[in-house]
Amino acid sequence: MLMKHSQVLKDGTYVKPKHEKLAYGTMVLVRVGIVRDACKQLQRAVTIATRYSAVRRQSEIVPGEPEPQILDFQTQQYKLLPQIASVFALLFSANDLATTYLQVSKDMTKGNMEMLPELHSLSSGLKALSAADATEGVEICRLSCGGHGYLKSSNLPRIYSATTCAITYEGENTVLWLQVASLGRSLQDVALKLVVDTESRLQRLCDMGQNFHHAWNNCSVLLVRCAQAHIRYFVCEKFLQRVKSSAVSEGLRGVLHQLCRLYLIYHITLNHGDFLRCGSLTSAQISTLEDELSLLLTSLRPQAVAIVDAFDIHDEILDSTLGAWDGQVYERLYEDALKSPLNKTDVPEAYHKFLKPLMKSQL
Amino acid sequence: MLMKHSQVLKDGTYVKPKHEKLAYGTMVLVRVGIVRDACKQLQRAVTIATRYSAVRRQSEIVPGEPEPQILDFQTQQYKLLPQIASVFALLFSANDLATTYLQVSKDMTKGNMEMLPELHSLSSGLKALSAADATEGVEICRLSCGGHGYLKSSNLPRIYSATTCAITYEGENTVLWLQVASLGRSLQDVALKLVVDTESRLQRLCDMGQNFHHAWNNCSVLLVRCAQAHIRYFVCEKFLQRVKSSAVSEGLRGVLHQLCRLYLIYHITLNHGDFLRCGSLTSAQISTLEDELSLLLTSLRPQAVAIVDAFDIHDEILDSTLGAWDGQVYERLYEDALKSPLNKTDVPEAYHKFLKPLMKSQL
Repeated sequence: MLMKHSQVLKDGTYVKPKHEKLAYGTMVLVRVGIVRDACKQLQRAVTIATRYSAVRRQSEIVPGEPEPQILDFQTQQYKLLPQIASVFALLFSANDLATTYLQVSKDMTKGNMEMLPELHSLSSGLKALSAADATEGVEICRLSCGGHGYLKSSNLPRIYSATTCAITYEGENTVLWLQVASLGRSLQDVALKLVVDTESRLQRLCDMGQNFHHAWNNCSVLLVRCAQAHIRYFVCEKFLQRVKSSAVSEGLRGVLHQLCRLYLIYHITLNHGDFLRCGSLTSAQISTLEDELSLLLTSLRPQAVAIVDAFDIHDEILDSTLGAWDGQVYERLYEDALKSPLNKTDVPEAYHKFLKPLMKSQL
Repeated sequence: MLMKHSQVLKDGTYVKPKHEKLAYGTMVLVRVGIVRDACKQLQRAVTIATRYSAVRRQSEIVPGEPEPQILDFQTQQYKLLPQIASVFALLFSANDLATTYLQVSKDMTKGNMEMLPELHSLSSGLKALSAADATEGVEICRLSCGGHGYLKSSNLPRIYSATTCAITYEGENTVLWLQVASLGRSLQDVALKLVVDTESRLQRLCDMGQNFHHAWNNCSVLLVRCAQAHIRYFVCEKFLQRVKSSAVSEGLRGVLHQLCRLYLIYHITLNHGDFLRCGSLTSAQISTLEDELSLLLTSLRPQAVAIVDAFDIHDEILDSTLGAWDGQVYERLYEDALKSPLNKTDVPEAYHKFLKPLMKSQL
């Protein structure tokens, strides 16, 4: 019998675990693994899409000039660079969670369970956030490759399938967000304001005679938003900490710092309404951040390929016609097309055998 | 030769079309088809997910009470009901676009091209919006079915593949948004404010010495947002008009009206920052809208299955174990599982043949 936490004595007496959430420990470890895997899948997708975007040329920025690499379009940078930043954000948070897990495990052997509920909440939220962000990010990468991203040989559809399942398994995301909301110790202005507002709404529904559980259900859309803001804040905080504390060269720290700013500003501008409503940012400040976002995209553009190269994912793992390190996109697409039975001959045999006689028979 | 608009005279002289955008007419018609198809795919997905959510029971709202249908959870309603509303919104806009197309075509035969650029912009924007909304909506439906949504036999993964391709083909979405932004006649406060802000930013970059085309590229993230706000406004306007003008019973108009409010409030609350920044809504007003959203979800909950039943999509078309009209979800899942070669016997033959000898051999 698996008796790490609970016990059955020889006389048959069942001894409950010291803490009802003791079994959560292992769950946390599994979730660290999920965050890291989500991160890995996003890394693969963004490597493929970034390299492809440096090879693919299309359309024009200035009429009459040669077709630029599509990575020169701001809209393309806006698709890919925040995903590169996400890889670092998720990785740093996963590592932090793993460290906290080891610390809490040590405490637990000494009978100290104090941090366990917080750790469980954090791991639930990080699992939900990383699965959702990576899934969305992988799909943005796929779509950024146009029709080629739809090709099986790009490997992006398979990476999507391998990523999106994490939204559902090991705690369905919406359920997890609601679990986080039920603990919801939030630090940042926005998360705090959201929690305060939602709490007063919950109270109002109860005052109007609703049973607490029904009132909770009727606030659950907002509760999910509270939990998301809380976990986003956590990830941003860890990203900032790591950029400051990492033992890296000043050049590398500069790039990491820019990626971190991009990550923060990307998410602030996506959710600017929350910041306006809690009064932590003014409309003018958000405009300034939008300007900075634009500058960051331009400034990180030349680093993009080097950063994904540094992820050091081997071609065998990427398994993609679009994303191999040598940039031979069209050669690989052509080789892959040759494998199709339809391309064995210029005109498929079936035409001569069936279609041609039919068309010539003048029915 | 295809000489509807341009001509080659007998002496070889090439006569240009009367208007350089004349060929856009047919393109518009194709895009009406894409909007309708996106709508159809979303209809299928939301039918499957809504019916499944009325059959599937899980967890509890009030501790100790029986497991509710998952459609009773507000978070589930928030996933599905806005998709039902979207079906109507997209359908009404597609129909309006088709009517405008016929009118503009008639004008064109009389040599009046005035409305053509606007029509082209509108059709580009509606194609981009409907492809993106339907793709996101189908995926929300799939995820709302938990692990079962990942099953091939749910048919949701196939519906997703059939929907998402529309983001890429017949004008890639980001490219289309930028085309809409280059015409950008916007009616609503938000769209207008976004356009004014973006225009002044564009001007500032030019004043700072940037070539107009580079400045355009450096504003393109915001330009896309302008175009999206413009088209979202168009769809909302058409939805409102149709609810008012449709020759339906007052009961049905009531339901349509609620769906329309849900559609509006859903998108306003998703983009509340834009409304706060242009001053068209205050923070308190948005809170009121959030309350109304919650009430609308509760109020539309009992209508959900009836509405998707009214889409009248036959089981053969849905081709889904989860979404057939009779609600026999588990029976169909079981039947489908029986088809797997792994389930032909209780223990697969390979166990007796290979694994068992190996395990008994005490290596």
